[in-house]
Amino acid sequence: MFKKISIFGVGLIGGSFALALKRAGAVNEVVGVGRRMETLERARQLGIIDHACSSVEDAVSGADLILVAAPVAQTETILASIAPHLRPGTVVTDAGSTKSDVVEAARMALGPKIAQFVPGHPIAGREQNGPDAAIVDLYAGKKAVLTPLPENSAEDVEKVASAWKHCGAIIHRLSAEEHDKVFAAVSHLPHLLAYALVDDIAHKPHAGLLFQYAASGFRDFTRIAGSSPEMWRDITLANQPALLSELDSYLEQLASLRALLAERNGSAIEAIYANAQRARHQWITTIEAAEKQNTQGGD
Amino acid sequence: MFKKISIFGVGLIGGSFALALKRAGAVNEVVGVGRRMETLERARQLGIIDHACSSVEDAVSGADLILVAAPVAQTETILASIAPHLRPGTVVTDAGSTKSDVVEAARMALGPKIAQFVPGHPIAGREQNGPDAAIVDLYAGKKAVLTPLPENSAEDVEKVASAWKHCGAIIHRLSAEEHDKVFAAVSHLPHLLAYALVDDIAHKPHAGLLFQYAASGFRDFTRIAGSSPEMWRDITLANQPALLSELDSYLEQLASLRALLAERNGSAIEAIYANAQRARHQWITTIEAAEKQNTQGGD
Repeated sequence: MFKKISIFGVGLIGGSFALALKRAGAVNEVVGVGRRMETLERARQLGIIDHACSSVEDAVSGADLILVAAPVAQTETILASIAPHLRPGTVVTDAGSTKSDVVEAARMALGPKIAQFVPGHPIAGREQNGPDAAIVDLYAGKKAVLTPLPENSAEDVEKVASAWKHCGAIIHRLSAEEHDKVFAAVSHLPHLLAYALVDDIAHKPHAGLLFQYAASGFRDFTRIAGSSPEMWRDITLANQPALLSELDSYLEQLASLRALLAERNGSAIEAIYANAQRARHQWITTIEAAEKQNTQGGD
Repeated sequence: MFKKISIFGVGLIGGSFALALKRAGAVNEVVGVGRRMETLERARQLGIIDHACSSVEDAVSGADLILVAAPVAQTETILASIAPHLRPGTVVTDAGSTKSDVVEAARMALGPKIAQFVPGHPIAGREQNGPDAAIVDLYAGKKAVLTPLPENSAEDVEKVASAWKHCGAIIHRLSAEEHDKVFAAVSHLPHLLAYALVDDIAHKPHAGLLFQYAASGFRDFTRIAGSSPEMWRDITLANQPALLSELDSYLEQLASLRALLAERNGSAIEAIYANAQRARHQWITTIEAAEKQNTQGGD
């Protein structure tokens, strides 16, 4: 049971975290901190937070747990504002989509208090943003990845894990480096590719005609291009080394596929398509089985 | 009202066409023709066709309308088998995802009977294939694009249009060349990109770890990579010139985005992301308004 949880950024991610903990009866008081008073007031109206706090000192004081759920580029500034007020017994975590840069920022901002910071990343999202997008079930059955630091105590890591478990999430652990390589491949690169395609089409002289005939395949392929540009600019820059490496690997793949297309090599093209279809089918089957098991385990 | 419709290929596309026409009470008899007797028998069990026909001559004889709904590479062979039995009063159409190559194949196969062939392309699909994937509502509110030939009579074009209207589809007209350029950009390229990404990931040494953390964004982005590899190999080759041109445009876009990422140009990256998000939002708003209007118009 948490007495007081303070959330820096009460949008989709922070707001859904608060709603889930409240429903679970796992927290007495939720405090919200943020850049825009309007957003905080909206979060209060929606029952996400109990009250908004304009003083970082008040927000940090007496909190068992602090969640930083803002675009990753703001992590260092926020942690630096928290640092002077941070007392033993308070654990700080985050929900950033990248981890190596967050750890680096946290070391800069928190200095000797770094042991109190347990980095995290819940693997869940929607294309909408802001407190109105927050939903109580966002994390149900989803993964929450923690990338604990050598300095963290087992007890503090467990405290953060227990909060995510109250939200219905399944806890996973990776190193920050592993985390960033994995998500560059399966999340950050697809976002970049989807944004790039829609922007490319939107700039063509006959864009209107093209959009008129775009259908459900295009809709799904580009769904992630509906995500927040600011948040994804930050993620793109924060995970730049791993993302560049994944992008280069994909560009090589496209170059060889282009060559096969130019020479009309139907059987080689079909082999790539068939391998992708098979791998995706196997993946879907595996995750569906895992989701079923998690649901049963939760009963 | 159609007395007899013969369908070459009773899978998702041909099967859904038959189911919709039957529900509308727009056809007396549906005959199925195909490569595999097993598939035809399944289609009969499912009530998609009234009977399977192993003789092309019998299938063609007395039909008001013939739909070719097989992978596009088979179009010429199928039309050549139909040609000798084709009598005045029968109209032939197709459901191929490419049109220039289909028109060329039709001219080769049908010769002087080309006026009886009205090329078409219903813009609808699912990731499943085969008669079991066929659903009665597949075309409801979706576009059916016709690319009529100069030789077609207005009456024959209207006959094909009326069949698709009975399925609930909205009729559009384009030239075959326009059609192929448009669909290279908004359909064929995204398919190639999705297949390429999944194949690329599946070949990495840590593919298992990557797939473990792939989430809903990846799932939607790659949904179209669950489509039939044979069908998409054919489409890729059939629309090769337009697809190469779209792929090259996209590769240029990725090269400039890569350069921006390498130099950490956050504001230029954000501008691309924001333009894509805006364009996609506008597109979704427009199609949702159109879908609402179509539904209301149908009441």
